[in-house]
Amino acid sequence: MKGKNMSRRMKSLTKQPGLPPGELIHLGERKTKHVRISVFDYNEKSLLEKDISDLSEVSEYLGKKSVTWLNINGLHEIKHIEAVGKIFNVHSLVLEDVLNTNQRPKVEEFDDYLYVVVKMLSGNADGNGIDTEQVSLILGKNYVISLQEKEGDLFDPVRDRIRTMKGRIRKMGADFLMYSLVDAIVDHYFFILENIGTRINDLEEIVLSDPTPVTLQQIHKLKRDVIYLRKTIWPTRDMTMYLPQMPSSLISDDISIFLRDLYDHVMRVNEAIETYRDMITAVLDIYLTTINNRMNEVMKVLTIISTIFIPLSFFAGIYGMNFDFMPELHYKWGYYILLFAMMCIAGAMMLFFRKKRWF
Amino acid sequence: MKGKNMSRRMKSLTKQPGLPPGELIHLGERKTKHVRISVFDYNEKSLLEKDISDLSEVSEYLGKKSVTWLNINGLHEIKHIEAVGKIFNVHSLVLEDVLNTNQRPKVEEFDDYLYVVVKMLSGNADGNGIDTEQVSLILGKNYVISLQEKEGDLFDPVRDRIRTMKGRIRKMGADFLMYSLVDAIVDHYFFILENIGTRINDLEEIVLSDPTPVTLQQIHKLKRDVIYLRKTIWPTRDMTMYLPQMPSSLISDDISIFLRDLYDHVMRVNEAIETYRDMITAVLDIYLTTINNRMNEVMKVLTIISTIFIPLSFFAGIYGMNFDFMPELHYKWGYYILLFAMMCIAGAMMLFFRKKRWF
Amino acid sequence: MKGKNMSRRMKSLTKQPGLPPGELIHLGERKTKHVRISVFDYNEKSLLEKDISDLSEVSEYLGKKSVTWLNINGLHEIKHIEAVGKIFNVHSLVLEDVLNTNQRPKVEEFDDYLYVVVKMLSGNADGNGIDTEQVSLILGKNYVISLQEKEGDLFDPVRDRIRTMKGRIRKMGADFLMYSLVDAIVDHYFFILENIGTRINDLEEIVLSDPTPVTLQQIHKLKRDVIYLRKTIWPTRDMTMYLPQMPSSLISDDISIFLRDLYDHVMRVNEAIETYRDMITAVLDIYLTTINNRMNEVMKVLTIISTIFIPLSFFAGIYGMNFDFMPELHYKWGYYILLFAMMCIAGAMMLFFRKKRWF
Amino acid sequence: MKGKNMSRRMKSLTKQPGLPPGELIHLGERKTKHVRISVFDYNEKSLLEKDISDLSEVSEYLGKKSVTWLNINGLHEIKHIEAVGKIFNVHSLVLEDVLNTNQRPKVEEFDDYLYVVVKMLSGNADGNGIDTEQVSLILGKNYVISLQEKEGDLFDPVRDRIRTMKGRIRKMGADFLMYSLVDAIVDHYFFILENIGTRINDLEEIVLSDPTPVTLQQIHKLKRDVIYLRKTIWPTRDMTMYLPQMPSSLISDDISIFLRDLYDHVMRVNEAIETYRDMITAVLDIYLTTINNRMNEVMKVLTIISTIFIPLSFFAGIYGMNFDFMPELHYKWGYYILLFAMMCIAGAMMLFFRKKRWF
Amino acid sequence: MKGKNMSRRMKSLTKQPGLPPGELIHLGERKTKHVRISVFDYNEKSLLEKDISDLSEVSEYLGKKSVTWLNINGLHEIKHIEAVGKIFNVHSLVLEDVLNTNQRPKVEEFDDYLYVVVKMLSGNADGNGIDTEQVSLILGKNYVISLQEKEGDLFDPVRDRIRTMKGRIRKMGADFLMYSLVDAIVDHYFFILENIGTRINDLEEIVLSDPTPVTLQQIHKLKRDVIYLRKTIWPTRDMTMYLPQMPSSLISDDISIFLRDLYDHVMRVNEAIETYRDMITAVLDIYLTTINNRMNEVMKVLTIISTIFIPLSFFAGIYGMNFDFMPELHYKWGYYILLFAMMCIAGAMMLFFRKKRWF
Repeated sequence: MKGKNMSRRMKSLTKQPGLPPGELIHLGERKTKHVRISVFDYNEKSLLEKDISDLSEVSEYLGKKSVTWLNINGLHEIKHIEAVGKIFNVHSLVLEDVLNTNQRPKVEEFDDYLYVVVKMLSGNADGNGIDTEQVSLILGKNYVISLQEKEGDLFDPVRDRIRTMKGRIRKMGADFLMYSLVDAIVDHYFFILENIGTRINDLEEIVLSDPTPVTLQQIHKLKRDVIYLRKTIWPTRDMTMYLPQMPSSLISDDISIFLRDLYDHVMRVNEAIETYRDMITAVLDIYLTTINNRMNEVMKVLTIISTIFIPLSFFAGIYGMNFDFMPELHYKWGYYILLFAMMCIAGAMMLFFRKKRWF
Repeated sequence: MKGKNMSRRMKSLTKQPGLPPGELIHLGERKTKHVRISVFDYNEKSLLEKDISDLSEVSEYLGKKSVTWLNINGLHEIKHIEAVGKIFNVHSLVLEDVLNTNQRPKVEEFDDYLYVVVKMLSGNADGNGIDTEQVSLILGKNYVISLQEKEGDLFDPVRDRIRTMKGRIRKMGADFLMYSLVDAIVDHYFFILENIGTRINDLEEIVLSDPTPVTLQQIHKLKRDVIYLRKTIWPTRDMTMYLPQMPSSLISDDISIFLRDLYDHVMRVNEAIETYRDMITAVLDIYLTTINNRMNEVMKVLTIISTIFIPLSFFAGIYGMNFDFMPELHYKWGYYILLFAMMCIAGAMMLFFRKKRWF
Repeated sequence: MKGKNMSRRMKSLTKQPGLPPGELIHLGERKTKHVRISVFDYNEKSLLEKDISDLSEVSEYLGKKSVTWLNINGLHEIKHIEAVGKIFNVHSLVLEDVLNTNQRPKVEEFDDYLYVVVKMLSGNADGNGIDTEQVSLILGKNYVISLQEKEGDLFDPVRDRIRTMKGRIRKMGADFLMYSLVDAIVDHYFFILENIGTRINDLEEIVLSDPTPVTLQQIHKLKRDVIYLRKTIWPTRDMTMYLPQMPSSLISDDISIFLRDLYDHVMRVNEAIETYRDMITAVLDIYLTTINNRMNEVMKVLTIISTIFIPLSFFAGIYGMNFDFMPELHYKWGYYILLFAMMCIAGAMMLFFRKKRWF
Repeated sequence: MKGKNMSRRMKSLTKQPGLPPGELIHLGERKTKHVRISVFDYNEKSLLEKDISDLSEVSEYLGKKSVTWLNINGLHEIKHIEAVGKIFNVHSLVLEDVLNTNQRPKVEEFDDYLYVVVKMLSGNADGNGIDTEQVSLILGKNYVISLQEKEGDLFDPVRDRIRTMKGRIRKMGADFLMYSLVDAIVDHYFFILENIGTRINDLEEIVLSDPTPVTLQQIHKLKRDVIYLRKTIWPTRDMTMYLPQMPSSLISDDISIFLRDLYDHVMRVNEAIETYRDMITAVLDIYLTTINNRMNEVMKVLTIISTIFIPLSFFAGIYGMNFDFMPELHYKWGYYILLFAMMCIAGAMMLFFRKKRWF
Repeated sequence: MKGKNMSRRMKSLTKQPGLPPGELIHLGERKTKHVRISVFDYNEKSLLEKDISDLSEVSEYLGKKSVTWLNINGLHEIKHIEAVGKIFNVHSLVLEDVLNTNQRPKVEEFDDYLYVVVKMLSGNADGNGIDTEQVSLILGKNYVISLQEKEGDLFDPVRDRIRTMKGRIRKMGADFLMYSLVDAIVDHYFFILENIGTRINDLEEIVLSDPTPVTLQQIHKLKRDVIYLRKTIWPTRDMTMYLPQMPSSLISDDISIFLRDLYDHVMRVNEAIETYRDMITAVLDIYLTTINNRMNEVMKVLTIISTIFIPLSFFAGIYGMNFDFMPELHYKWGYYILLFAMMCIAGAMMLFFRKKRWF
């Protein structure tokens, strides 16, 4: 993550203020060129998978008992979002939230659907930063709509399971599909955390062995990443906690155990983040202390050299004076006596420093 | 925001103590010269917009089913406030709170009206500080009264929507009008936050590249701004949380989803402020560490130069002495041998420093 | 506040342990010489104001419907306190709390009275410290007893309002009187806070411009004051929160809005204290960083001077040696060449420092 | 408290793991040689006080309506504890807790008795540390059993009140006796706090005037004491909070006001501890800042002396060189001109330092 | 614990994402070679103890009223886990949690069993680190299944008590067995804490007497251990708190007192960890301050030597100059007068330093 990246993220917090609530405007970067809309329609026995270009095509699947999964990649073509609103009877405020990609993870209950926002995290190309994408899920009777900012997601394993009938997904309802999608996203958080954990461990070793100013910048970058991660993931806790408590007919009792499991995962993620925060603070403390230790080391070298040679130089200076009457200068052994005295002084200094345990 | 500004803000926390509760005295600066009173009266079909000078003119609109919005800019003419009290039957404690512009954001329920306090924030002219204005809203049956400290507000988009029938505002009741006003104010918080975010990012870059004592002052100013922002905005959370729970007949079920959305926005603002607090603390840590790093750098230069030349100077001093008997002085190659020895000593020192990785 | 003051306050936390609970002993300093007892007895039409010396005189007012306010200044004469216990049927533990002036602000409900403890704060004579006085209020049917440690209080405005019939106080019951007394005390907290706010702002400016060790002591004193203030005022929050919830017939519905207003004030005080705590911590951080900056400055001067002149002195030392064979000494331009070389070295050093941005 | 003391305390946290729950083994130091068992049996009219050696003697008092207080000093003779279990029908887990003197303060309700654990604190002989003793109280119908680790307690005032019929204790039941015992212990906490408060104040003065490394050790010792105190006393809060809520027939309504008073005391203790924690942190901050200030002072002296004399020595070195052609050496006033130039340089340096406000 | 260890622990947070929920894959290191399955089947009268190799053998004990304890050491053979799922009708998500050894301690209620996760801690071989093992317990009607990662556990005392009929375990049901197992694990936490406590005390003494950079590394290691311990143990609190509240027919009222005792132990562990955190932070503060103290000491020595000898050297330099006209050089007593003057200067410096209390 570059400084710029962060700045951009922080900057795009807001829409043009003064717009009427419910006005549909896409906020956030346009992350993909083409909008791609795909439909899965399945039950235990049959499966239909199809890319469509016009949302009205989806209506034919809705009345049926099979589960319909409508996935939309790319949010910049407002007409598709408006079509979702019309066909599925979704409140305009929800559509506004879908388009404003700075939502907090949350779940909101409406009369005949649930609206869920999750943050999909992925590592940057350079392996060192974090990319965020907002995924909106709308769970209605027998359908799930997932709206993503761009192509490329973490849902391929879910698609495979649907295609191959692996696991129980084909036997369960739309609620299980929504759970599977959120679960896929949350599972990926652990990968992001691993990356952070490795970076902390690397920095720990560097800080204890050979810290440089570059290390400081790395610690700082890491700290910002964790602050950002915390801000992004933390509200997911509330979301997963409220999800099983929703008094909604849309969520069947069968999946409450799965939702509890999901909550458990989110708790583990959050606890790990808190632990990482503590560990980074500890690393920074160590860095500061190590610098202090080093300065101490430098000071000691300077002091030892100075305090030994400055007095000696003084004595040399004394006998470099040009006074007419300096009897010592004429003693036969004067020079050697002085050299000997100087060695004694130096030796005494050394003993003093050793006693002080300076080396 | 200047130091003075802050001081003034903090100072004006209080009224003359000892006044009876409910006594009407305008507290806070007089921010506008003239009081301006304007009325909007609208329903789905008709719209009346008018500036009035005497509040009694407003009574004619009250009985009707249309929504009446009374906006008062400027609080220093007590007679208008007293007129509000009389015409709308508002409790004297509420009027006192309207006039004392140091309230916390809050909502209070009365028998036939709700009293809401919000803080309207705007950037200073120099783009670097934050201006606060208290806005009081009184929501009654079919009317909203908004009381501001001065001319100039964030409500023009709302006015435009009323005038142009954009959005649903003309179809909804007074509760939606109140929501729209609060929403306009809260939406603007995101702009203030963006400004803060940009300043943090700028300081981060400066601190990592070339921090000066001025940077420290800027960090401090920023920190104070965030502390102030937090104090001002934080209680808005409670306000928006209680608003939908008010067991009041004044708030219809239709707008509960809008109020939930509002709460969501306020939560995002508060979380961003907390994140900014963490980030500023991190920046200050980096600043301190960078200064320590630099001092270390300075110390190293001093130590390298001193420890190389002080011993050499000592030897030069030795052979500058005037003893009669110093055989080395008379050796033919004495001078060159000494120069060579000195170079050896300097070289050894350099190796020592390189081994210590000091340069 | 002097260090001694603080120490004294902390020391007088306790009574002689081992005394039976309910034993009446005055704890705390004796702050006044004479005990002064005054009575107000009023209703909407009549007012009686009188100083009495024997508490039994008060009984005559009790049966009547008028509101009786009994104020006692000075707690060291136990007989008056015992008389209160006997005449008003007050529990001995309450009397013990009245006398032990180290209570936390609190409200306690009894069968036929409420017991309220508040801390009355006032600025010291030197305008820089905080004086605390415990005020006990007992609210019974148609009467309020206020017990203070010494002469001089913040109740004169309340007295004036009773005398002049200003405001609604003469029309309301004993509960409103009690509220007015607590309100007068809480309103004064804002003045104390202003003082603190001004001191913080002054210190901020000093710390950024010219901090000295004395500044450190002032920051420390300020911090202790805020810690002390927090400890003293914080529990008032609970007290004012529980007050309207008391299921007591003593508190009428009419004043619940006033109590809510009181709670609001206390919340504002507490939030301001928290903000001040943050700000003082920030000031201390700045102080520390400024000292570090300065040390850095000092180090740079030392290093620049030393690294320029120590090598030059070394060269001067070389040519001050007395070797018989030193050809350079006999060159015609030797001296000038050396001077030029020295200037080159000094210049190079200067360039190096400028490149390092040390000056 | 010595380091050893602390270490010992921390070490004895545990019993031999793997023992079956309810196994009776005395954990903690054996603090007294002989076990002493004393009985008080009293009602409003009669009092019996007696030392017994065999617990079976106590049975004769149990059936009666009088209150029986059985006090056991010394826990190392298991047979007495087992006898308590048998005679009073106490659960083996309770007996285990009695013997393991590392319990947290707590209250537990059983069918026909309450089990209360409190920590009795007392100052060390050297007046600087804190001694802890666990006191277990078992409140049953008409009896209280108190179990202490050693001779010497804070209960003598309670005993005196029973003997002399002072206060209401002889008129009240066993619940009041238990309250009186806990109250005596909690009251003594204030004395411990006073000691801490005095030590903090002393350290504050030293730190601001003349801190030495020994001061650092004292601050550290004090901090450890407060950390230890907090750990020991904090859970007492829960204990006293739950006590009045116990749905037990053992606690009569009459003493609920006394229990509320007790809770109030414990809250005051805990708040004082928190305040002390803040104050010690502040003292440590001041210490660190003062050391930094001093180092700054030292650096300034070094820098002033060095930057004045190093350049001057250089000039002296120049004219100490032995070049054949150095015209200045032969000027008549050369020496005096140089001395004057040197004084000018020194003066300029002094002005520079004064401008920088270094002295 | 080595850095690597920590890193490994952090890394293995996750399974391959994208797997369907409930897919059985063993996550974590394979800590044992062979899977060992043992069965205890007991009631008050009879006991059967047996190692089995095929889980189907266990079915014969299930119908009976006796308590069956099935212990499985080693999780890497999936077939055994699947057999558990089939025979005991355990949900696949539970089995997944059993295999993924990165669970948080927790309790989950199912229709006919409880699932409990605890962390078993043990000291490393080198006595300085902490080993963690996840133990899963499944409590059903008349049976307990315990699943461990490897051979070697803390359950031998429980086994002994079953074999020898010591304590009440043979008389109680499966719930008591589960309690006994958890209790054995929690009891061992105290041993781990003791180790930490001893290390803190050792470091405290070293830091106050003679800290080295190695000490810093030890503090850091200790801090990481405590952070890790906290993360591992903290959720146990929730687990033990919810356990007695489980509205399950599987937990009889008889053992609620034992569960309360367990909760009490866990609380003591958590409080001790918090105290240790505070103490380590204090130790690090002391370390930093001690280093600062030392640097101060070093600076003082340097400054004293420099400020005494640099001016003296300057004067020696003056009289080493070769000016033709330097009258002082020809005074008879010039040399001695200079020496005396130098001694005076040195003495004055010494007095200055003593006044400044530098030595």
